[in-house]
Amino acid sequence: MISGKLPKIFYGGDYNPEQWDESTHQEDLRMFKLAGIDIATINVFSWALNQPDEVTYHFEWLDQTINRLYNNGVYICLATSTAAHPSWMAKKYPDILRVDSDGRKRKFGGRQNSCPNSPTYRKYAERMARKLAERYKDHPAILVWHVSNEYGGECYCDGCAAAFRVWLKQRYGTLQKLNRVWNTAFWGHTFYDWDEIVPPSNLSEHWGDNKSNFQGISLDYSRFNSDSNLECYLLEYNAIKEIIPNSIITTNLMGFYKPLDYQKWAKYMDIVSWDSYPELTTPVSYTAMTHDLMRGLKDGDPFMLMEQTPSQQNWQPYNSLKRPGVMRLWSYQAVARGADTVMFFQLRRSVGACEKYHGAVIEHAGHENTRVFREVAELGRELNQLGDSLLDSRVESKVAIVFDWDNWWAIEKSSGPTIALKYVDEVHKYYAALFHRNIQVDLISVDADMSKYDIVIAPVLYMVKPGFADKLEQFVKSGGTFLTTFFSGIVNENDLVTLGGYPGELRSMLGIWVEEIDALFPDQQNHIVMKQQVGSLQGEYSCGLLCDLLHREGADVIAEYGDDFYQGMPVLTRNKFGNGEAWYVASSPEPSFLDGLLDYLCTNKGISPVLHTPKGVEVSQRTKNGTQFIFVMNHNISAEAVDLGDLNAYDLLAEEKLSGTIEIAGRGVRILAVASE
Amino acid sequence: MISGKLPKIFYGGDYNPEQWDESTHQEDLRMFKLAGIDIATINVFSWALNQPDEVTYHFEWLDQTINRLYNNGVYICLATSTAAHPSWMAKKYPDILRVDSDGRKRKFGGRQNSCPNSPTYRKYAERMARKLAERYKDHPAILVWHVSNEYGGECYCDGCAAAFRVWLKQRYGTLQKLNRVWNTAFWGHTFYDWDEIVPPSNLSEHWGDNKSNFQGISLDYSRFNSDSNLECYLLEYNAIKEIIPNSIITTNLMGFYKPLDYQKWAKYMDIVSWDSYPELTTPVSYTAMTHDLMRGLKDGDPFMLMEQTPSQQNWQPYNSLKRPGVMRLWSYQAVARGADTVMFFQLRRSVGACEKYHGAVIEHAGHENTRVFREVAELGRELNQLGDSLLDSRVESKVAIVFDWDNWWAIEKSSGPTIALKYVDEVHKYYAALFHRNIQVDLISVDADMSKYDIVIAPVLYMVKPGFADKLEQFVKSGGTFLTTFFSGIVNENDLVTLGGYPGELRSMLGIWVEEIDALFPDQQNHIVMKQQVGSLQGEYSCGLLCDLLHREGADVIAEYGDDFYQGMPVLTRNKFGNGEAWYVASSPEPSFLDGLLDYLCTNKGISPVLHTPKGVEVSQRTKNGTQFIFVMNHNISAEAVDLGDLNAYDLLAEEKLSGTIEIAGRGVRILAVASE
Amino acid sequence: MISGKLPKIFYGGDYNPEQWDESTHQEDLRMFKLAGIDIATINVFSWALNQPDEVTYHFEWLDQTINRLYNNGVYICLATSTAAHPSWMAKKYPDILRVDSDGRKRKFGGRQNSCPNSPTYRKYAERMARKLAERYKDHPAILVWHVSNEYGGECYCDGCAAAFRVWLKQRYGTLQKLNRVWNTAFWGHTFYDWDEIVPPSNLSEHWGDNKSNFQGISLDYSRFNSDSNLECYLLEYNAIKEIIPNSIITTNLMGFYKPLDYQKWAKYMDIVSWDSYPELTTPVSYTAMTHDLMRGLKDGDPFMLMEQTPSQQNWQPYNSLKRPGVMRLWSYQAVARGADTVMFFQLRRSVGACEKYHGAVIEHAGHENTRVFREVAELGRELNQLGDSLLDSRVESKVAIVFDWDNWWAIEKSSGPTIALKYVDEVHKYYAALFHRNIQVDLISVDADMSKYDIVIAPVLYMVKPGFADKLEQFVKSGGTFLTTFFSGIVNENDLVTLGGYPGELRSMLGIWVEEIDALFPDQQNHIVMKQQVGSLQGEYSCGLLCDLLHREGADVIAEYGDDFYQGMPVLTRNKFGNGEAWYVASSPEPSFLDGLLDYLCTNKGISPVLHTPKGVEVSQRTKNGTQFIFVMNHNISAEAVDLGDLNAYDLLAEEKLSGTIEIAGRGVRILAVASE
Repeated sequence: MISGKLPKIFYGGDYNPEQWDESTHQEDLRMFKLAGIDIATINVFSWALNQPDEVTYHFEWLDQTINRLYNNGVYICLATSTAAHPSWMAKKYPDILRVDSDGRKRKFGGRQNSCPNSPTYRKYAERMARKLAERYKDHPAILVWHVSNEYGGECYCDGCAAAFRVWLKQRYGTLQKLNRVWNTAFWGHTFYDWDEIVPPSNLSEHWGDNKSNFQGISLDYSRFNSDSNLECYLLEYNAIKEIIPNSIITTNLMGFYKPLDYQKWAKYMDIVSWDSYPELTTPVSYTAMTHDLMRGLKDGDPFMLMEQTPSQQNWQPYNSLKRPGVMRLWSYQAVARGADTVMFFQLRRSVGACEKYHGAVIEHAGHENTRVFREVAELGRELNQLGDSLLDSRVESKVAIVFDWDNWWAIEKSSGPTIALKYVDEVHKYYAALFHRNIQVDLISVDADMSKYDIVIAPVLYMVKPGFADKLEQFVKSGGTFLTTFFSGIVNENDLVTLGGYPGELRSMLGIWVEEIDALFPDQQNHIVMKQQVGSLQGEYSCGLLCDLLHREGADVIAEYGDDFYQGMPVLTRNKFGNGEAWYVASSPEPSFLDGLLDYLCTNKGISPVLHTPKGVEVSQRTKNGTQFIFVMNHNISAEAVDLGDLNAYDLLAEEKLSGTIEIAGRGVRILAVASE
Repeated sequence: MISGKLPKIFYGGDYNPEQWDESTHQEDLRMFKLAGIDIATINVFSWALNQPDEVTYHFEWLDQTINRLYNNGVYICLATSTAAHPSWMAKKYPDILRVDSDGRKRKFGGRQNSCPNSPTYRKYAERMARKLAERYKDHPAILVWHVSNEYGGECYCDGCAAAFRVWLKQRYGTLQKLNRVWNTAFWGHTFYDWDEIVPPSNLSEHWGDNKSNFQGISLDYSRFNSDSNLECYLLEYNAIKEIIPNSIITTNLMGFYKPLDYQKWAKYMDIVSWDSYPELTTPVSYTAMTHDLMRGLKDGDPFMLMEQTPSQQNWQPYNSLKRPGVMRLWSYQAVARGADTVMFFQLRRSVGACEKYHGAVIEHAGHENTRVFREVAELGRELNQLGDSLLDSRVESKVAIVFDWDNWWAIEKSSGPTIALKYVDEVHKYYAALFHRNIQVDLISVDADMSKYDIVIAPVLYMVKPGFADKLEQFVKSGGTFLTTFFSGIVNENDLVTLGGYPGELRSMLGIWVEEIDALFPDQQNHIVMKQQVGSLQGEYSCGLLCDLLHREGADVIAEYGDDFYQGMPVLTRNKFGNGEAWYVASSPEPSFLDGLLDYLCTNKGISPVLHTPKGVEVSQRTKNGTQFIFVMNHNISAEAVDLGDLNAYDLLAEEKLSGTIEIAGRGVRILAVASE
Repeated sequence: MISGKLPKIFYGGDYNPEQWDESTHQEDLRMFKLAGIDIATINVFSWALNQPDEVTYHFEWLDQTINRLYNNGVYICLATSTAAHPSWMAKKYPDILRVDSDGRKRKFGGRQNSCPNSPTYRKYAERMARKLAERYKDHPAILVWHVSNEYGGECYCDGCAAAFRVWLKQRYGTLQKLNRVWNTAFWGHTFYDWDEIVPPSNLSEHWGDNKSNFQGISLDYSRFNSDSNLECYLLEYNAIKEIIPNSIITTNLMGFYKPLDYQKWAKYMDIVSWDSYPELTTPVSYTAMTHDLMRGLKDGDPFMLMEQTPSQQNWQPYNSLKRPGVMRLWSYQAVARGADTVMFFQLRRSVGACEKYHGAVIEHAGHENTRVFREVAELGRELNQLGDSLLDSRVESKVAIVFDWDNWWAIEKSSGPTIALKYVDEVHKYYAALFHRNIQVDLISVDADMSKYDIVIAPVLYMVKPGFADKLEQFVKSGGTFLTTFFSGIVNENDLVTLGGYPGELRSMLGIWVEEIDALFPDQQNHIVMKQQVGSLQGEYSCGLLCDLLHREGADVIAEYGDDFYQGMPVLTRNKFGNGEAWYVASSPEPSFLDGLLDYLCTNKGISPVLHTPKGVEVSQRTKNGTQFIFVMNHNISAEAVDLGDLNAYDLLAEEKLSGTIEIAGRGVRILAVASE
């Protein structure tokens, strides 16, 4: 989609020539060539440079930069520069500064620092996007438009309060309805006038770590805040589209970033792009899951890896170096899971300010004789070699995991039953079990089409949005396998409990009734005792966090609790429903249990791994025009052997034919092209 | 006292019909009957409903609710609805909103959210109480009036600052006196004008975790804040009493709640009521101690258990379920220690907002077929069976522990000698030693009559209020046994040190001089080496926290330190004084030491346990009209045997005669009626 | 220098007679005589007493106090009383109150509570100093002037913001230069008007624990804040000097106190004084290092030990007593390292407010029969006995450690590579290795004359100020041994990176190039593998924190990394440069490595310990007029033997001749006078 101009995986990253002088610019070009760089993201933080006062705009430097790069084979990812407002603007129009949850008005500083409902911000940001679009609408260098940068954060100012009330009126129409869905009869919080409503904050309804007295209010504020930022994005997006209808526009996302509902945002993005910053200690399965989430935002369309560090970060507590080979390995991991670009933050390290200790293609040493540059250049060479072979290929999965931002917000704003419940961690447990057996997974929203999947897993489906229970029932009736867990089916989209017995709307499909929910202390556990062997599962497994105390209402009891007063109650159930099955896991199990359970479910559905590999060797597959591209990625330090079975493959990197048992070097990558049968 | 209308232990709890529709109200009545519910606390958070604007009042819903309940056999605990102000009031009169210790003006939200010195709050709260009293003064359903709800928190607004100055003028008369008692010559803080005084806060004299530069100022602010809230309570109390002189009025307390001096409050309450929320991990001795504290607030009068959860809470980190039988067991524990009601928060679980995960008699499932409801109904049946047999019976004790709110505040505001000293924890150590041997204890204030006790224990009697040392001397001279500990006798009621040598006013009675006080690190300890055997105490015991370095001045040295440079100094002393003895424990010992010491002291005074029981089996006794009611409560999971000795008893629950060795089921309760000899 | 009036080590401390009545004053005099007290610091916190309103000044009490003390043999250290403003001033002139980094305006309370740029504060503080100087300019009692007290903290008010802009204009002249040195092109923070600049705070550029988005801005604010406080000091200093040109003026410092650049301050102090408050767990080497830092502030001139506690503190978490003998031991430690006074906070314990649990010469008991008083009096006797023998003697060192406040600020504001890097801790590692072998060390600034040293050590010389690299090269070329560590030579005085390869300006002298910097997690380590034996160093040693990945450029590789992908890279290098050597330690090693390395370096330079002593026995030497005074201080509880070799010494305390192997009691001190050869 973005490959029209140059049929290959674009390679490059963030570039800030405005921090450097002319001679450095020339040296940059030389280095870019050595590294195989063909795309640069520019103008990300140049608002103050572009617009030194209210009426003056200077784009000459940008003209020169774009031309200089383009004339040297580097395409442009053009940012709109609105991610940090100029200091003069903050001084003249304080409405642009945010107010935090403690009611503190911010002063000029930082980035992503503008109130999303500030009239000043919206006016000048939109104007900037429009001016850029007008100026560069015909420039052949521009590959993609990059609106602002890493939108995020919250504001609680009076302007946001006013906008929140408007948003609420549009959503609920009447105060009567609002009072009902927020259950304001509780604690006598009934509102008689829209103006009585204030943003939920540390000064009103919030306490502790993200807890709220009124989950309904807080949930709506999270939605409103995400929407407010989205409106800012759309002002710029529409301004550009109006002038350049065929432009490709994105903004860089941040994976599992809680404040913004990316599933909603992605509807308004032409291509998804995101910034991947795993730590040394981040499980590779977690990074893989995040790529899959990002890919799922636009139904599997390839995405841009917009940022990653070539070597180290600066904002972590302990900024470890990426070990030799790891940058390449993780770059291919992104590609294996749907990325069609490989891009870095940053091309040249700053000389001052906080990111001067963030890794870069061109380090402070300034020359090409560094480990980091050598690795970058080698990867650049490979990407040239790969050409367009992988572009636009798709990752195909028969298993989906449901992920929902509203559910995330609602679960973690809940006061009770436990502070230890973290939605993403529970999702990751299920993801990891599939990842470790090389089963391809899509992370999908509740709006996604589920008909193409054989198995749908929705860990902690606490909130069931309107129509979703029906959709799930339809899926199962049609033969699908559905699995959900403890603390599911509890509330509707307003965090109001579905009365009559948990899991509410999911109850008949699951064939169970959850009577009580026990919260375990961190050092407590219960056990899952298998009543029948399913697949490799037999004997006992530990579980903890929450334990639903449930009764079967038609479901088969596959395992029971082993301890405490609810010993003998069901902990794992399966309900035949139509042509399919609905499974319930009533507690949070140890990994080996999930390994066995998901193995069993997949086997039953005839879903087999792409390849069987040793521990630490990841496999992901993209498909295009009848060819499968199997990425085999060895996260171990030492070489591993992988049996290809009866596959006849061609390694696109090593440029050799392979079959039988192959070796893959420590931290090595093989991309095997296999013709579909 | 509250049993005039229905001669039994009232059973019920908080009920919020304003959150529900008519059909639910009818279902509630059915369920209440099944559960044996005969009292409902209503109107707790209905201010906004009752008063939708400045001039309008609606009580029709309340009329209907009261009548509906009363017509179905449910009496009313009528709250005044002033525990959370309406949102329109916050918008129109911002003086009602609090300012916190960081100077942040709160916005509308939460509960107990009104500035206690707000003219708006005081005017409308008093008016609401008056209107309710006028409307319901003759209604036969009303059993008790419940002013506001769980008073608490602090405010630091300018209105409070002004009121604080008035309070100080009344207390001290002149700035000269105020400067003296606050020792403002220190750090040159001399005040020359009352208006120079500001509330001590995080913006002025406070730092760290509740530490102050000027303990005298901070102590007075704690008193002032407690008094300010008390004034709010009294405005409502007096309004009701004026209209209904024979009404019974309470407000629900919260046990060891630091911000309010409940011993002062209780003087203005017709009956004490409180909300008991132990965690799964709270020692049962701690809950028992809290009941004893609450009972002691009005010299042993029975109290109301106003709230407890039937199953779980929502605001703890890990909200465990109460195990089967535990709700019943803990309910009887309250009764055993003086409660004449058993009441829950809440009768029906909310559908939304933060308490929707707080347990209730009627759960979200909505029907009677739940474990929780069955346990509630079974207890309801038993309470009916018990009738009025226990009502107004008294707990009689020969041992008292002194507890004093001013002392609590002063100890924990102290800068030095250690942050690890927690007053309630030290009190609990002594309480637990008595509890585990089934010795009945009263928790008394420094104003209480001590003549009825044989033993008085005052752990960490840091502050000695005017006249209290004389009173203690009188007690000991008359033959009493007194015991106090390290860090006692240090200051007067203004936190000014009593000069001339610690423990100040207690020195001659104790026959010791404390020269220095050493603070131990958490991983450090010293030892108590017995110089003579007393009771079962011999050999060595560990101690820590603080070690007083003391010299005998007439006292007998019973034990010495075993380590460090003060090895050989006295650590346990006994001073014969008049006809009694005064003991001093110079450090914080391990529990086994206190077990032995208190056993010895009780034995010496002829105080014997109610019964000897196995570990985990609690005993408490109430007495009425020559009958003793011995509650035997087994906190263990498995059954235990208890030897009744030569008692002939009748089990009021099992309705059987018992003697010899009896069995008590795991988590079981027996109430044994025994005629006094 | 301060001994003109009474030729001995002055002995006394802080005294607050304004907190006490006349009879106590008389008792104080009696006690002072018993203790040998001959100096009292008074008027520290008497501003409100001295100036009860805007126009009135009362000094009669001060006249009386000074005369009473002087007539009883006690000299005066006269404070100016400006360390805490009067409450009336805060009320009338709120500009005197500070604003914190969170934007919160403080209210009246605490001490060191004045905004350093407040016009009110500056006017009245300067006026107070002037009035005091005029009044007491001829009083023979005044020994030294003590301006304010423990200057410290920060302010972020609008007044400071305005002053900061003035300070910046003076420093940088143009916004162009300012934008360049702050690298404001990063994140588009370019300033177009001075008024756009706001203090960097938690509301603008700061986050986490002292991290900044713009190190350059934050560094300048630290400098500005230190300078603002210094200006306040100088206003008072100059007012006094104008009236009493030959006065001796100081202000009491606090050792390694980060907010104030004491090396700059000391230029404006006639004598350095400081307050020493080690905890029970503070390594004695750390206290020694702090004394050496304070001594180094004025090129080795003797300093005043202005405050220490006789027994315990009140503001630590666990305020342990100083064990018997420790107060004396630590007093002599101060003297051994350059102190010419021994003074306490405080002479009499307060009766109220937070310091009432801080130890004092006169305890709450009020009499002389306490352990603390006896120890104080015994030391008083000894100091009389010592007379002027030690006064004005000097500590002479051949080894210097560079310490620089700007470097401290810059390192710890850095975002990356690790939050675990603490400058003082790294300095202390090197200091401790020298301390434990009784090698005398000076802590010097980058401005110091290095020509008198044989070895200069600069741990983590992250910032290289203009000219300092040249100076170091000159030092090495002339035969000196220089050692620095990982993360050195990175930035200039504005925290801008020296491009072209680390360690920047130090690169040629060190003969290495550092390519990358790896940050290790706290539980990670690498190893130093010796490639050749140097001194006692052989085999392997652990290291961690940061690991520089470096290449030799002429240096000899003495040791290599033992692990990870940079196994085999140099970790310890030595470069011959001119007549000297420059060493580089590329990671943070375990202590035994530094013991061996520094032993080797000293031995090579012919620097030998003052004495060889058992572990825990500290030695320091002062020299005067050809006599060496060797302090032997046993920090162990039990006695130790020390071999004097061929020294013939005279013990000034025991008043005996000593030679051969001598015994030194547990926590004992010997001061050996030895005639130089």
